[in-house]
Parts: sequence; structure tokens; C-alpha cells
Amino acid sequence: MSIPTPTAPPPDIVRCAYLDLVVTDLAASRDFYVDVLGLVVTYEDAEAVYLRSLEEFIHHNLVLRKGPVAAAAAFAYRVRSPEELDRAVAFYRELGCRVERRAEGFTRGVGDSVRVTDPLGFPYEFFYDVEHVERLAWRYDLHTPGALVRLDHFNQVTPDVPRAVRYMEDLGFRVTEDIQDAEGTTYAAWMRRKPTVHDTAMTGGDGPRLHHVAFATHEKHNIIAICDKLGALRQSDRIERGPGRHGVSNAFYLYLRDPDGHRVEIYTQDYWTGDPDNPVVTWDVHDNQRRDWWGNPVVPSWYTEASPVLDLDGNPQPVVARTDTSEMAVTIGADGFSYTRPEDDEDALPSWKQGEYKLGHQL
Amino acid sequence: MSIPTPTAPPPDIVRCAYLDLVVTDLAASRDFYVDVLGLVVTYEDAEAVYLRSLEEFIHHNLVLRKGPVAAAAAFAYRVRSPEELDRAVAFYRELGCRVERRAEGFTRGVGDSVRVTDPLGFPYEFFYDVEHVERLAWRYDLHTPGALVRLDHFNQVTPDVPRAVRYMEDLGFRVTEDIQDAEGTTYAAWMRRKPTVHDTAMTGGDGPRLHHVAFATHEKHNIIAICDKLGALRQSDRIERGPGRHGVSNAFYLYLRDPDGHRVEIYTQDYWTGDPDNPVVTWDVHDNQRRDWWGNPVVPSWYTEASPVLDLDGNPQPVVARTDTSEMAVTIGADGFSYTRPEDDEDALPSWKQGEYKLGHQL
Amino acid sequence: MSIPTPTAPPPDIVRCAYLDLVVTDLAASRDFYVDVLGLVVTYEDAEAVYLRSLEEFIHHNLVLRKGPVAAAAAFAYRVRSPEELDRAVAFYRELGCRVERRAEGFTRGVGDSVRVTDPLGFPYEFFYDVEHVERLAWRYDLHTPGALVRLDHFNQVTPDVPRAVRYMEDLGFRVTEDIQDAEGTTYAAWMRRKPTVHDTAMTGGDGPRLHHVAFATHEKHNIIAICDKLGALRQSDRIERGPGRHGVSNAFYLYLRDPDGHRVEIYTQDYWTGDPDNPVVTWDVHDNQRRDWWGNPVVPSWYTEASPVLDLDGNPQPVVARTDTSEMAVTIGADGFSYTRPEDDEDALPSWKQGEYKLGHQL
Amino acid sequence: MSIPTPTAPPPDIVRCAYLDLVVTDLAASRDFYVDVLGLVVTYEDAEAVYLRSLEEFIHHNLVLRKGPVAAAAAFAYRVRSPEELDRAVAFYRELGCRVERRAEGFTRGVGDSVRVTDPLGFPYEFFYDVEHVERLAWRYDLHTPGALVRLDHFNQVTPDVPRAVRYMEDLGFRVTEDIQDAEGTTYAAWMRRKPTVHDTAMTGGDGPRLHHVAFATHEKHNIIAICDKLGALRQSDRIERGPGRHGVSNAFYLYLRDPDGHRVEIYTQDYWTGDPDNPVVTWDVHDNQRRDWWGNPVVPSWYTEASPVLDLDGNPQPVVARTDTSEMAVTIGADGFSYTRPEDDEDALPSWKQGEYKLGHQL
Repeated sequence: MSIPTPTAPPPDIVRCAYLDLVVTDLAASRDFYVDVLGLVVTYEDAEAVYLRSLEEFIHHNLVLRKGPVAAAAAFAYRVRSPEELDRAVAFYRELGCRVERRAEGFTRGVGDSVRVTDPLGFPYEFFYDVEHVERLAWRYDLHTPGALVRLDHFNQVTPDVPRAVRYMEDLGFRVTEDIQDAEGTTYAAWMRRKPTVHDTAMTGGDGPRLHHVAFATHEKHNIIAICDKLGALRQSDRIERGPGRHGVSNAFYLYLRDPDGHRVEIYTQDYWTGDPDNPVVTWDVHDNQRRDWWGNPVVPSWYTEASPVLDLDGNPQPVVARTDTSEMAVTIGADGFSYTRPEDDEDALPSWKQGEYKLGHQL
Repeated sequence: MSIPTPTAPPPDIVRCAYLDLVVTDLAASRDFYVDVLGLVVTYEDAEAVYLRSLEEFIHHNLVLRKGPVAAAAAFAYRVRSPEELDRAVAFYRELGCRVERRAEGFTRGVGDSVRVTDPLGFPYEFFYDVEHVERLAWRYDLHTPGALVRLDHFNQVTPDVPRAVRYMEDLGFRVTEDIQDAEGTTYAAWMRRKPTVHDTAMTGGDGPRLHHVAFATHEKHNIIAICDKLGALRQSDRIERGPGRHGVSNAFYLYLRDPDGHRVEIYTQDYWTGDPDNPVVTWDVHDNQRRDWWGNPVVPSWYTEASPVLDLDGNPQPVVARTDTSEMAVTIGADGFSYTRPEDDEDALPSWKQGEYKLGHQL
Repeated sequence: MSIPTPTAPPPDIVRCAYLDLVVTDLAASRDFYVDVLGLVVTYEDAEAVYLRSLEEFIHHNLVLRKGPVAAAAAFAYRVRSPEELDRAVAFYRELGCRVERRAEGFTRGVGDSVRVTDPLGFPYEFFYDVEHVERLAWRYDLHTPGALVRLDHFNQVTPDVPRAVRYMEDLGFRVTEDIQDAEGTTYAAWMRRKPTVHDTAMTGGDGPRLHHVAFATHEKHNIIAICDKLGALRQSDRIERGPGRHGVSNAFYLYLRDPDGHRVEIYTQDYWTGDPDNPVVTWDVHDNQRRDWWGNPVVPSWYTEASPVLDLDGNPQPVVARTDTSEMAVTIGADGFSYTRPEDDEDALPSWKQGEYKLGHQL
Repeated sequence: MSIPTPTAPPPDIVRCAYLDLVVTDLAASRDFYVDVLGLVVTYEDAEAVYLRSLEEFIHHNLVLRKGPVAAAAAFAYRVRSPEELDRAVAFYRELGCRVERRAEGFTRGVGDSVRVTDPLGFPYEFFYDVEHVERLAWRYDLHTPGALVRLDHFNQVTPDVPRAVRYMEDLGFRVTEDIQDAEGTTYAAWMRRKPTVHDTAMTGGDGPRLHHVAFATHEKHNIIAICDKLGALRQSDRIERGPGRHGVSNAFYLYLRDPDGHRVEIYTQDYWTGDPDNPVVTWDVHDNQRRDWWGNPVVPSWYTEASPVLDLDGNPQPVVARTDTSEMAVTIGADGFSYTRPEDDEDALPSWKQGEYKLGHQL
């Protein structure tokens, strides 16, 4: 059942701006995001911590909010002007979505805002008014070896990727890359407003769920420094996957799991996508370099685990199962396959590249 | 004499896209840009070489064209759609500028284009149609230690910076940073269309002249590698200034001089400026960290030397002298001064920070 | 059966100097070591290729020699003076080893040399006389993004590590780090002559076999560049393990497999060990950060696969099975365990850290 | 007047180990070395601060000691065994030097030690006994963006470089590189015990004086991070020269001046020199890439300013003027010259490479 295209124009979105995240142990989360990752506290009280990256000038990029269930409360986008909020209201009302607008904002530091439960079940927020704070770009006395300088993107899990993409295109996003197979199944798609590879991606799976939120560093060694520090703190088990080089996006990456299991990516060095005719890159789902350019296996938890998202009343959204084949199933395990070179046999990966669940081939 | 604001809307510019550069010895220039810097040849013949950076998908970012006088023939911007060319024509006609449109383009690989001599005397080009070529982002087998991945910006010399800024704002650019003094003189301004610190900057001085064209690398060590290679080739005298960290833009930089003396910057890691209310950063001209965050002296040639620009017939534009005080004069030399800390004496720089022309203080 | 300590003093070894390696397809190996990894050809003919790293001044660090069976023909060490060869002869004769001395050397570019089959079954070579060649340290025009600058170490597989260590200490080596368990089993030991973590290591397993040879880069991004290039060449399946940070040695690492399956490590940034009382670091075999500081799983092939070594007639040495427990068995699989924090349960690793063969936990 | 070669053998020196430095404002010096540079405090009291680098396991690499005159109190070397101290005593007694031995050491954390005023007038110390402390190599939670990991070398100013070199060779050092001219004048020489380019260097000039002490980082970006932090702290005037690439040593470098004007180098990535026949590299004093591989000018203060050294009673040593021509005079200024390419004219440097004191060519 496809989502109709509204006749109302979508709001003009500038960029993904912040994630509103519910955590169950605020102190533990603060330790992870502030003491380990070095995000900067703009404000905090007993209920929430407002964090920003080092080059940010708006109030926050991440809100950690104490709550009973670890979940994503909102994916917030900045729009180009206050008037765009009216357009957001009209756009989502026409789609039959629940829409809430608050002049005083939903989070501290942000003014007039619109929150919706979108057609995919995700809580999306749009705002323009926001408190400005010091951009710490030049404050190298505050930078750490793993300095996080920008919020880069969200990543969402949804059962039907093409359906999600069509809706996001109506919302003004453009696809930059995707993963497909020869049978026409789409496994994931990356979409942007700002001229990077994405502001958000749609990953095929049971959803709506938050797959991850990503922060950018300047250089690759910054990401390595985060791993080294986690080792020093004997928290290396926070590292879920990577570091590695993505095929999709060409970025250098690392995936961490926070104390609630929320996934955080650290990301650097994708490419300019801002031209109107930017070429879309489509990857074969069987290409073993699509998710990791070095062919290193993707850990199964990365495919299967994700965070719930909340409705506008703060209740977890029910999760709908994916009906298309899963990327994990078609690429690893008894019936799946991956290749390094398209001309190779289906079964050509050496033992060290087969991944954890290549069951038919173990021992 | 200020430039009137046209009633016609400006063309919607996406980004700075390429520089059309006249060189006097094509083989020597090719050696510098291709063999030393590693730009990629899209096409070449006896008259011209068309070069692109490694992440580019349009035909070229730099044209080296053989000619009698080393000069900049055009600063070319990509616009958002073919229709924007009509707007460019109307915009500049209303300004009384000479305008030329060629359906077949002015350079190979580019289609329908508009060239103008703008009110500041610079040859500006606007185009949408362009041949797509392979984006070599993933072709790490072709990358060198100093890999240039994007064209980042132009920098233009013009006598009256505020006048230039007002015109550029009419053209749709936004100021991100500038250098001023307490008396209200503006020495330079940085302006952007794409959400980086600039697509072009206006540097106060005798003009119109090309100050430099800049290419981006991913990491700082890439810039160091270019210096190291120039040393190995016994061409270290191509290094004019740097490497260093800019105060303005916060980027890591290097300035080179090509065989004709055209200046090329290598640049990495400025910050996101794409929000509509992005804070403008104004630097005090006497702040010794504005041009180099480490307070290292700016070599005088960097202030005084620049390349001629051509009119639409290919003749060098006459140069008009700056009448405002020059940045070099107010910051170094007998009457100028710079400080590291605003509270310091005017004369507080240690000997090693005073620069080449601190004449009153030598020996 | 322990190896007696000779009364004759050992030769004064300066450093590991080169590996003499038999490959079955010389063209394929040349492509890997020269075209992919960028080692420098000092000399080559139809039978062999002599390669060196960029900062080397002796004739070669690696000989690729065409032969019927892929194997290591010699681990060659440089000694401090020509006279040390006499000591090597006396030392090994006293041990009852087969010893061969050739005034003209065993490989091109090397003069008077001694080769032995040592008590562990490894072909060891000692030499002083060697042809000097250009040290390419300053030739940045020849450096690649993944520039290999030094031979760093060998790694040997042997069944009884403590027995091997005692012999190597008699030969003048010092232990810098090792892996043990509470029951007193030693799984591996690192030993040095030059003041780095090792010139060679002894890894417990069926032996004698060559585990790997390691080359050093200057920075971590050089290692990442090698991975990126292998991806671009669609040879990512040459990457066996990593990149990662070692616990042991604290170095950043990558393991590759060459066309014959010989393992090559790329390695950077271990620490100074040259003080006579340098503290030995002993790691618990169950510490999940010992082999990879980030706790990323070690691929089983890394534990089980290695290259044969040759006797002085060029025949493969018979392999003796390890009788002590194996590191793989005690750390992964049904009966093994690893921890991130010593105080954790034996079974505390999250799913994404359990590795390929954590069989009791799969699916 | 040359220094006789003692018949007594020299002590077996392992490496340069620490500098004993008198500072006039202990709090200001602590702020620089600890809060800015991130050296680790092993111990401190009202009179002194004992600092070490992150990979060090002995008590200190630098002592900051409060005193009335900023000066170097001792250049301390570690020897291979306690017995070497007897050799040091005999060696220097035979040279007629003042020798003092203290069983309890001259600095906290160090035991039995010998201090001498050497034939060049420098206070040299030799010790073996030393307290071990935690090697923080793996403590990435303590590392900063500009992490200093090792003491690398000293650099001493002395009037007669060849005389100094002969004495240092008698002491067991080996020359790795030097700077000479065609007339046979030696301007500087680099000498090592450990297998890097140097443990100390002799720089021609009025002496005895301390030119600088150098600490090593792992990567080049660590050095850039120190500059960036100094900018953020508005202490960029601590940067005297660099960052840059040395010709001599091939290392990446930065020179800072501490609150007393003592010079500190930050240094990374020189090369292995431990082979007995390591080739000596001799640089032409007129080669503009010898001191900076990129040909960037050496600031005059770097040639002329240095710290006094103390005798064993704590009084500043008198300074003897250099009588040979100075490197600064023969390379810059009215009568000096430098070239980028040997075949160029004597006067071939472009304006931006001529340096601060190219007086005949200014304006």
C-alpha cells in the first residue's frame, strides 16, 4: 500500500539536526557520550542532557532523556525558515498523519516546532527557531583525539524500502546510493538534503526502528582514537562493527553500542552530492565490498538489532516485519552468497571473509 | 560608485565548478598539475588540458589553455537547471555588463553557457549542461599521497571589498567570515553558495585579479605529502606559504605557485555553513592569528602578487589600484602592528613572529 | 626435550634483515608485492625478485624466488661484524645443527653468509657483507599512500613456545611480551634484538612454520590506504584480519595473504624496548583485548594456517603438532572463553564480539 | 686545541634519558609542559616537577627545577649496567674533567649517578639505577591530540663542531648526518647511540649552550594539534619555527619556546640508523632544503638564541664565541646564499623563500 504524494509542497529541509533519545540510565549514557565520546554539554538537569558536536552552533545535536524504555523520541530536521513549519503541517495533514505543533518547542533551546508520526511510523520533527551557542571549532584546547565535529545522519529501519523512498522523495530528499539485487529487491537506500551522501538512510528490516545516529570526525585517526580509548577503558565491547571503509558512501566508519544498546556511528569523508544530476550509485547486494570496502564481514547483530521509536504520546511504535528477503539472508548463511569479483564463483570467498554465520562452511 | 541591485533575480548557483586558466608553457603546467599534483586528465590536445579532481563527476575543474599571457579566462559556476542561464543573462544585462551566450559552450565538455564581464571586471561563467565522467572516489589504486578530491573555491583580488560583497550578495552569495578593523575598513570577505566557508572570497588589493584557486584534500597529511614530494623533486620553491592552519575558515592550508606564477591553494577541513542563520565570523585585521592560526608570518608576495584576468575577447583587464589601506601595511612594516592577545602591547610579537618586512625591528 | 645452552657465545645480531621466500607464480607475487604494496625492486630476473622497503639501504628485505612449493627458505639476520659469522658457526655446531657457510652468499647482493637449520627446525641465516643501495627515505616522489618503510619482524610457529624462548635467549634475544594462562601455559612470546617489540615472535602451533613477515609504515592511514587500494583492485579477499590495534605491542596492524597464502603483516607504532630492564608485559590468554585491543575477533585461519619452511636442501621441513592447548581452543568455541573485563563472567562477551566459531551460541 | 682520546673505554650508553632544566617560574613552566604539552607528572613539590612522556617507564624525562637563572643543569644518559658508571668516572678523569658521583643520585627517582663537566663545558650525567613507573602506552584515555610519547634527543650549541664530534665519537657516539660546505667547514653534526638519527646533535655557535630538547609523537597530525591548541590558548607566539619537514633526519618537526625561552622540539618519523655501516648523509650548507625540506626560511632566533648550561656548582658556564663562519651568515643575508637546485644561480630563490634577513633584496 503506497503512500500518496501530497499536493501540498513539502517543507524545505536544510539538514538533519538532532536526535531526541530516551535512555534508561542517564548517568551511564552521559558517561558514554560525554566522558568517552567527548560530546559537549550545552545544558543538563536531572532529566536530560543536551549535547552538541564541536563545530555546531545550534543548541544541541543529541538529547539524552531519561525514560522507562530505551527508544528514539524524535528525528529532528532544521528547515530553512519559520514559514516552512506551516508547510510541514499541511504536508503531513494531507497524508493523514498525526501532527503536533508547539510554539515553545519540544526540547529546550528549540522554539516553534512541528512533530509528526510519519507514514512509516517514525517520529519526525521540524523546526527553525533555535538558540545559538558557541561554535567550538577553533577551541582546540577542548578537542580530544576522537573529536566529533558534526552530526552527520540518521539511519532508519523500515520493512519496505521502495515505499519509504518514494515518501522521502515527496518530502524533498534525493537518493544518492542504494543496494539492490538482480530480481529488483531494494535492501537499503541513502537520501540527502544537505550535499553529503545522506541526512538519513532507509535500511530494510522490521520497523519502524532507529538503526543508528552518526557523528562525523575530521580524520580517520580520530575514529581509531575512539577505539583505542574504549580499549583503555576496558569498554571495547561497545565496538560492534569496524572500523572500516564503507563501499556505500566511501566513508570511513565505526559502529558503537551505547549503554542502552542504541547504535552510534562515527563517520568521516564521504563526497559532494549537491549537484542536481548527482549520479546515483547502485550496489549489488551480493557484492562483498558494498557494506565494507575491504570485504570484512558484517556482524549479524548489525543487521538484526535496532532501537524502538516512540509515537507522539511516548509509547513504542509496533514493529512490522519485513516481507522482502533480508540482506543478511541473501548474503551469508546456507543459501546466501557474496563475491569479491563478479566473475567469481558464488562461493568464492576465502574462509576469513565468510563471516560469522556461514554455517555450511564451518569447521 | 556602488553597483545597483538588479530587479531581475540572480541565477541559482550550485557551486564553483571550474577555472579556465591561460598558461604560457602547456607542458610545464601539465607537469605541475598532473605529474606533481595528481589531477586527472579528462581530455587533452595540443592547445589545452582538461583536468578534474578525484571525486568529481563533471568533465573538468580546471582547464589549462595555452596562450600568450598567463591569466584567468573564466571563473565558472554551475547553476541548478538550464533555465538559470536565462536568469543570468537578464541579471547581468540589467547591470549593463557584456554578456555572451554559447549553446555549444566555451570549453569542451560543457554545453550551453553564459559568460559575462561582471561589474568588478571578472570573467564569470554560468552553465548547467556538462558531460559526466567517472567519479574516481573509489579508485584508490589511482590515489596519490597528496590526492586532490574536490575543487573548493576561488579567491579574487578587488580594490573595494564592501562594494564587491554587496554585488555578490545580490548574486545570491552569503558572507561567512571577513576581516575588518575598528575604523570600519574591510580587508577581505569569504562568501558561499555551497555550505562550506566559501565558493569565492574577495581579497582587498589592486584588481580585478585572480588570487588563487583551491583544491581540497581529505586529510592534513595529504597536504604535507605534497610538500614532501616537491622537496624530493627539488621544486620546493613552488611552496609560497604554509602549510598552516587558517584562522579564517579554520582550514589547514598550503599555497603553491605554478610555473606561470598562478597561485594554487590546497585546503582541508573547514566547517558547515549551510544554515540560513549561520553566524558570520569577523576577524580583527591586527589579530596575528587571523591568516595563520599559529601566528606564522604571511609572506609579502602572498599579499602583492596575483594573476591578471581576461575580458571576453581574451585581453587582460586593466587593474585598478586599491585606495583603502592594505592589510599588509596595517599589520607589518614600520607603521603596522599585529598582536597575539588583544591585551598585549601593539608591539608584542616576539622576534620570530614579526615576519619578513618588520623593517624597524631588523638586526 | 630442552635445547642445551652452548658454551660458545652467540653471534651479535643487529636486526632481522630479510626473508627468503619461495613462491609458485613469480609474476603473481611480483604484482602483489610491487604493484599493490609498493616494495621497491632492487634487482630481478626470471627466477627471483629482490625487494626492499623505502628506508632500507641494504640490497633487499624480501626475496621472491620461484619454486615448486610455497615456503620460507630463510629468515636472515644481520650481524654486527664479519667476525660474528665465525661465532654463528661455532654456536650452531655446538648445538648439533646442520651449518652451511658460503663466502659468495646465498642470495644476490649478500656476501659471506651462514645458514643453519636451527634446533626448532627453522632455516636461519646470518650475514654482515651486503651491497648498499639508495635509501629512498627522501624520495617522496616514489612514495605511495601505503608506503612500506622498513622490515619490522618475522613471526614463527613452533609447538613448544617456552623451549623456543630459551633457545632464542641463548641466541641473545630478549622477551618483551608474552601470552600465558593461569595454569602456566605460554601461547606466544615476542623477542627482540633491535629496540622494538620484536625481531621475531614465537607463536604456539604446529611447526616449524612461518606465521608472517611484517613491514612497517609511518602512520595508521598508510595501512588504511592499503586496504582501500585492495578494495579498488577487487582484491579485498587478500585482507585476512584487521586493520586493528594489537594489545600485544600496542601497534596498529593489518594481515594480508599473498597469492601463495604467505601471510604479510603491515605494522606501525610499537614502543622503545632498548633499556636493559625493559619491563616484560604478560597478557592473559583469556583477555579479549590481547590480540586486538578493540576486542574484534581473530579469524580462525589466522590461528591455523601458516607457511612451510625449508631445510638447507630446499625440502619442506616436517611439521610437529603442538601438544599444549591451543590459543584458539581456550579462547573461542564451546569450551573456550574470553573476557573484556577480568571481573566479568566467563561468558560475558556481547554477541558481536564472540567471533566466528563461538559455536554453542550460534543461531 | 683538540680533546685527547682517553685510553679508558667509554661507558656503554643506551640512550638520552632526561634533561634537568632550571626554570624561573615553576608554575608557568608546569602550565606549559603539563597543561599545554601534556607531559605526565610523576612527582612534584614546591621546588621541582618530574615529568615523563607517555611511553616512558623510567621516573622522568624532564625535571623542571626552580632556580634563579634559566639554564640546563644536566643532560642525562642511561647506561647499560651499574658497572658502566665506573667506566664513566675513569673516562672523564682521564680527560681531566671535574667528576662527581652520588650514590643517591642527583634527581629524585634516580639512584647512583655520575655527573661531569665535559670537555666542551656541558654538564653530562650517566646513570643506570632508576625507579620504574607505569608505562602509559596503552592508556589512551590519558592521551591528548598532541600526545608526546618519547624523549627523542638533545641538541647542543658548541663553537667547534669537528672538535666536539671527535670527543663524542670517543664517547661511543656515531655520526649519522652533518652539514658542511665545500671549504671543509662543518656547521652541525647529528650523533646517536640508540638507532635513530640522534641522541644529541652539535650545532655550531657560541657555546656551550642548550639548543633544544626534543620529544617524539607518533604521527604528524599530533604536531599540528599542538599548534592548533596553542592558537586556541592565544599562545601561538610560543611557536618559533615550523611545523615543517627536516632535510636532515627526514623528520617532521616543530620548535616551541617555553616560558623561559628554552627551546623544545616536537619530532616524528626519522629512520633506522642501527646498522654498523649506516650511511652518513652530508648536506651542503647552501642547500635550502637541508634544514627545511620545503625550503621554508629558518627564523634567525633559531640560529642565535639558546639556553645557558650550568657547571656542577650550578653556575652558568661562560660562553665561547664560534670563530668559524656561521650557518646563518653563509646562507642568508648580504653575503650568504641558498639554492633549491645545485645548478641554479647563487641567487635563485624566489622572493617568498628568501627569509627574514635577505637584506640586500628587500623592498
